[in-house]
Amino acid sequence: MVHDSSCAYCVQADKLLQSVAPVTELAASKVYLWRDGTYRGRCIVALKEHKTELCDLDEAQRNQFMSDVSRVVAAIRAGFGADKINYGIFGDTVPHFHFHLVPKKKNGPDWGKPFVPNPVEFKSMTDAEILECIEIIKSNLK
Amino acid sequence: MVHDSSCAYCVQADKLLQSVAPVTELAASKVYLWRDGTYRGRCIVALKEHKTELCDLDEAQRNQFMSDVSRVVAAIRAGFGADKINYGIFGDTVPHFHFHLVPKKKNGPDWGKPFVPNPVEFKSMTDAEILECIEIIKSNLK
Repeated sequence: MVHDSSCAYCVQADKLLQSVAPVTELAASKVYLWRDGTYRGRCIVALKEHKTELCDLDEAQRNQFMSDVSRVVAAIRAGFGADKINYGIFGDTVPHFHFHLVPKKKNGPDWGKPFVPNPVEFKSMTDAEILECIEIIKSNLK
Repeated sequence: MVHDSSCAYCVQADKLLQSVAPVTELAASKVYLWRDGTYRGRCIVALKEHKTELCDLDEAQRNQFMSDVSRVVAAIRAGFGADKINYGIFGDTVPHFHFHLVPKKKNGPDWGKPFVPNPVEFKSMTDAEILECIEIIKSNLK
């Protein structure tokens, strides 16, 4: 399994963990909760291996990874009462393959528009709020 | 296979085809080229069936659809010399499951930032330019 010692995801860098908190590991991925509470329950699902594009994964790894993503989508839809999930992969400068999964609500921020990937002001939830979100996700993972 | 007669993707509505041009059909999806040339080669890969979230697809359909997406990612990376692909699924108000696939270049628009889903000003390519892009994509589809 390929890793890159200069990649924040490969080494779980302190800088990464300032923005996100670890939730769990699945078959092909690691799951993180976004600490900013703008879209409560926003997650990252990152491939365990260092690859860049979907087409760089072989079929078995792609299917396993997308199964993981699907499980997290279902968990945050159920756990946070989302009306729609937004999904994003960007990574021009952090190319380690990872999905942003963002629960949206009809009465919540940016409904009807794409989610804002980088909030203007990072508003971290408290440790208790973060633990509560992690528990919601884990208890809804089927 | 479920369709929704009020969905722009299910009926290939005129309004949809003002923004995109059909490229091809793959096993589980239809592929469209974005007519706006801001990110030349930007595509949509839309599920043939009307479903909303990744977790609404069963395993076989999910694997087939993601294989289609992977093929289009590889084609636009190779065909347009992209340094990174950005991926987005939003659809709060158009929930038919579809990926935006956006080729990014180091010397091109918004490098290092997420792609802008809806351009401020829609600048359509000419018919000839659109046909050229479609040919590039089709000839790079493996």
